[in-house]
Amino acid sequence: MQKIIFDCDPGVDDAVALFLAFASPQDLEILAVTTVAGNVAADLTARNAAVIRQIAGREDVPIHAGARGPLVRPPFDAGAFHGPSGLGDLPLIEPARSVEPGHAANIIADLVMAHAPGEVALAVTGPCTNLALAMRLRPEIVPRLGEVVVMGGARREGGNITASAEYNIWADPHAAQIVFSSGARCVAMGLDVTHQVRSDPARTAALAAIDTPAARACAALLAFSNAIERDIVGGAGAPLHDPCVIAYLLAPHLFTLRPCTLRVETASPLTLGHTAVEFRLPDPDAAPVRWATGADADAIFALLTARLAR
Amino acid sequence: MQKIIFDCDPGVDDAVALFLAFASPQDLEILAVTTVAGNVAADLTARNAAVIRQIAGREDVPIHAGARGPLVRPPFDAGAFHGPSGLGDLPLIEPARSVEPGHAANIIADLVMAHAPGEVALAVTGPCTNLALAMRLRPEIVPRLGEVVVMGGARREGGNITASAEYNIWADPHAAQIVFSSGARCVAMGLDVTHQVRSDPARTAALAAIDTPAARACAALLAFSNAIERDIVGGAGAPLHDPCVIAYLLAPHLFTLRPCTLRVETASPLTLGHTAVEFRLPDPDAAPVRWATGADADAIFALLTARLAR
Amino acid sequence: MQKIIFDCDPGVDDAVALFLAFASPQDLEILAVTTVAGNVAADLTARNAAVIRQIAGREDVPIHAGARGPLVRPPFDAGAFHGPSGLGDLPLIEPARSVEPGHAANIIADLVMAHAPGEVALAVTGPCTNLALAMRLRPEIVPRLGEVVVMGGARREGGNITASAEYNIWADPHAAQIVFSSGARCVAMGLDVTHQVRSDPARTAALAAIDTPAARACAALLAFSNAIERDIVGGAGAPLHDPCVIAYLLAPHLFTLRPCTLRVETASPLTLGHTAVEFRLPDPDAAPVRWATGADADAIFALLTARLAR
Amino acid sequence: MQKIIFDCDPGVDDAVALFLAFASPQDLEILAVTTVAGNVAADLTARNAAVIRQIAGREDVPIHAGARGPLVRPPFDAGAFHGPSGLGDLPLIEPARSVEPGHAANIIADLVMAHAPGEVALAVTGPCTNLALAMRLRPEIVPRLGEVVVMGGARREGGNITASAEYNIWADPHAAQIVFSSGARCVAMGLDVTHQVRSDPARTAALAAIDTPAARACAALLAFSNAIERDIVGGAGAPLHDPCVIAYLLAPHLFTLRPCTLRVETASPLTLGHTAVEFRLPDPDAAPVRWATGADADAIFALLTARLAR
Repeated sequence: MQKIIFDCDPGVDDAVALFLAFASPQDLEILAVTTVAGNVAADLTARNAAVIRQIAGREDVPIHAGARGPLVRPPFDAGAFHGPSGLGDLPLIEPARSVEPGHAANIIADLVMAHAPGEVALAVTGPCTNLALAMRLRPEIVPRLGEVVVMGGARREGGNITASAEYNIWADPHAAQIVFSSGARCVAMGLDVTHQVRSDPARTAALAAIDTPAARACAALLAFSNAIERDIVGGAGAPLHDPCVIAYLLAPHLFTLRPCTLRVETASPLTLGHTAVEFRLPDPDAAPVRWATGADADAIFALLTARLAR
Repeated sequence: MQKIIFDCDPGVDDAVALFLAFASPQDLEILAVTTVAGNVAADLTARNAAVIRQIAGREDVPIHAGARGPLVRPPFDAGAFHGPSGLGDLPLIEPARSVEPGHAANIIADLVMAHAPGEVALAVTGPCTNLALAMRLRPEIVPRLGEVVVMGGARREGGNITASAEYNIWADPHAAQIVFSSGARCVAMGLDVTHQVRSDPARTAALAAIDTPAARACAALLAFSNAIERDIVGGAGAPLHDPCVIAYLLAPHLFTLRPCTLRVETASPLTLGHTAVEFRLPDPDAAPVRWATGADADAIFALLTARLAR
Repeated sequence: MQKIIFDCDPGVDDAVALFLAFASPQDLEILAVTTVAGNVAADLTARNAAVIRQIAGREDVPIHAGARGPLVRPPFDAGAFHGPSGLGDLPLIEPARSVEPGHAANIIADLVMAHAPGEVALAVTGPCTNLALAMRLRPEIVPRLGEVVVMGGARREGGNITASAEYNIWADPHAAQIVFSSGARCVAMGLDVTHQVRSDPARTAALAAIDTPAARACAALLAFSNAIERDIVGGAGAPLHDPCVIAYLLAPHLFTLRPCTLRVETASPLTLGHTAVEFRLPDPDAAPVRWATGADADAIFALLTARLAR
Repeated sequence: MQKIIFDCDPGVDDAVALFLAFASPQDLEILAVTTVAGNVAADLTARNAAVIRQIAGREDVPIHAGARGPLVRPPFDAGAFHGPSGLGDLPLIEPARSVEPGHAANIIADLVMAHAPGEVALAVTGPCTNLALAMRLRPEIVPRLGEVVVMGGARREGGNITASAEYNIWADPHAAQIVFSSGARCVAMGLDVTHQVRSDPARTAALAAIDTPAARACAALLAFSNAIERDIVGGAGAPLHDPCVIAYLLAPHLFTLRPCTLRVETASPLTLGHTAVEFRLPDPDAAPVRWATGADADAIFALLTARLAR
């Protein structure tokens, strides 16, 4: 059983990732869900996490709200990709149970220090602000962290928010730079791999056919993303960004990784948030960061469908 | 009685500032001393604060250690200005009482929230890391802060650590930018004013003539700084940087301030930590930041001497 | 008949490109070859151009030397990719005829102004320094330029000299930014396309089988590059970067282009020379820059072989 | 007799500097006046130089127009300081004789190469674009240049166009960086010294009392500047920036200089054009750049008045 802290900013695809994690109690012990401003504002990401927890029936998992904006750069507006609420066109409900007290960064640090070295993995599907704050508040967590799996970055695929940057890293480039240069073992799940994992009518239909609230919500979220992708990007089938992080923690063999150094551009307005990924290393085996280059999309969708069908 | 939190990195001139604050119980209620890596490493600044507290006989004041390095930029080496221990050539002692638990950033946030809006002033004589972390962890403290008085920055005087930057700001430019752009009411006490407040033999002798452990320690610290200033910088009489912050809180009329905007260079290696101070404002009265341009050095030394003589 | 100025820094692959251009007198009228510091120092690139002209028997074409280093950034060392002479292991000869007087930048400006608007295309296979200087000396050339075809940049392929930058653009990023933002009609032939056009034993052998000095030299240059590629990069078959520029001018239908804006990173050390290529344009038809995304490698090698066999 | 090339962008204070140079034929042999876009557009600075030449009766001096904009950065608008024509409220006339052909950068290079090493000094009172272009076109001029005296930069005085930058350097920071890092012997005449040399009613009246067209024009230009200074800056007496360059070439003993390294910020939008002046040098005698720190304003105005009275 892998212990994880799931740090997210739901967000449509974060929500699907949360449903997948909540539906995997045999594999993942979720010590906490922590939330951050990102796809939508901090109040909304916290509320959305609580909504999803309620739909998933996992009120055993505590949720802690965290950073209300990026570490250094001015706040930004995430636009239309996630709808005004952040959960697409899911009906707006107020969760019966609110989030728990305590700042995400302090909770992350406390939980990591309360477990054995390497025991707690981090799943990060939003800007890295909370984890970066935790690392700066309590540097002693760095050598105790298990794998840190971050959805973020772009190399072959170019950027999505700008020509050269992916949204999560661009949204808090300083935080990402702190995490990827910390020495912690990181996996970067960037657009190069998430663009290989796209929903399509068949994959969405398979989810929609499952008669549970969580599966129905997932199918609705994917349908919303597909419509946005079609209307704004002109693409067929929205990439399933964030669920790749959970899929990796459940089934790492579905992904191809390559050792690298990853440095984040924090200085230049033109390339802010660009991930400079260097594979030419003197000692690849010593590199703490790995970059995801490939994924088995069929198997990932099959995993998602199977878990939500439980 | 002004309530303050004193955030510092002792450091020789921080130590003199601490002695001045500890010697002013009729004017300043020190809610906490918080420490940060800066002039020397974090362990040393925390220990040094405890040493000074002990010499001053002020064990009623709690000390909390904070950030162990800058927010974003890589750590640095502060060099020889403060001696290997950070307290010049004061005899090395281990303080009888250690620092209190709790991270400086959390303590700052808790104390500010526990008091009325505007009630707690911040005296910052090291890198701004702790206060920046507190602002990012708990943005709600910003409108509740009293005056934030920071030793840092340079305009007319050029830099001291580089051609264009002063040490405290250069040491954590991102943190300084967070603080000065936060909207909190700030006073920047840069080299333009601290270079006007220099110790000299007469001023040092006046302190040395006072027969208390604190005054003797202060005189020794000033003598150490004067020797360094003479040998490394080639100047006569070391500037009394950090004590200006406490002197301002005790006697603001001794300083001339000018409304400005202050932006910190965080992007370019050449000018990293430069403070871009703009006085040409559409509405100077609305500017939350003021830049110190002048000081009454005689009166400041008289204040220091009088307080340490109590 | 297309009039061109061929601005280059031979360099092994520039040399092959020169041979291809020199072997195409029915299609290309080469008004001048201009040289620039780049793959090797300025004296060597000028001499190498004269050597190749001599081997090709094209002393009718004038050669003018140009910039001896980049426009703004400090000079650099191009390393081992082109051998100490810049022409791999070709026998070192001193050309019988030296280069002509006149600075490349002035010559480019004079030639463009002496012809009708749109009549003179630029083939740029080195750093863009000469053309940028010409544009700054004589801005009136910009609207008179024909197509400007530049070997440079990287998007999908990442960088070759750094994680995020291709060599030619990195070698003079300011010059490249001047050219690509000038409003001139540009084609950027970056690594995304040149990595699709790789020599292999069969392709090299086809050249080696042609019994002319130029073809034998080309075969030797490709063999040298293949060995370097195998030993340093670990790849099979060196990319034929610069000849793509001439191939495009001879047979544009062999390439797939996509309208874009292209901005060059000039500010940040980490990403210096990165090409930020944005395809999401309000009006793609109005974009003066096009990015090469695909090439017919078989046809390009067939073209090269056929021309050298004439 | 000092041979000079006078590179300028008249501009009100350039005009006064030109009158001073034209009125000093016993001391200065002006090989050429070259003009650059700066205070106003390139066409206007060339025309204004010809107007001033005509008023001064110095048609023996050739004028060559040069760069029509900065080297790398986008063009800018210089605003109201020099009036729409660039010559304050002087009556607009069309000069009887136009400027001579040949680009300023080529002319500078040709003239420097045509004279003995060290023989030709450069007076630069506008952006450094022309000289930077000349250095990049013909690097061999650098060791042959005499003293290069540049009006530009700010240290103690802060900036005038932004908080941290002076106008001439900010207008073409890359060109300034090329010049000051070239190794040529440079004198930087920045705001620190030009703000010490301010016109006042008595000084302006002394010029106005001279009954020559040049002196009357100078007095009118100073009166215009004083009015602008009073209305926009709120200061009393406009600084006589550019004439300091000619005054230095005529009477270097009127200025105090200090060896330094001077690096120009080219990377960051916040501090673009800031001059990082470092006096702490391992070997000050070897420093090729000197920074003007002091000037004898009375003597400079006396010199100006005396020359215009001849």
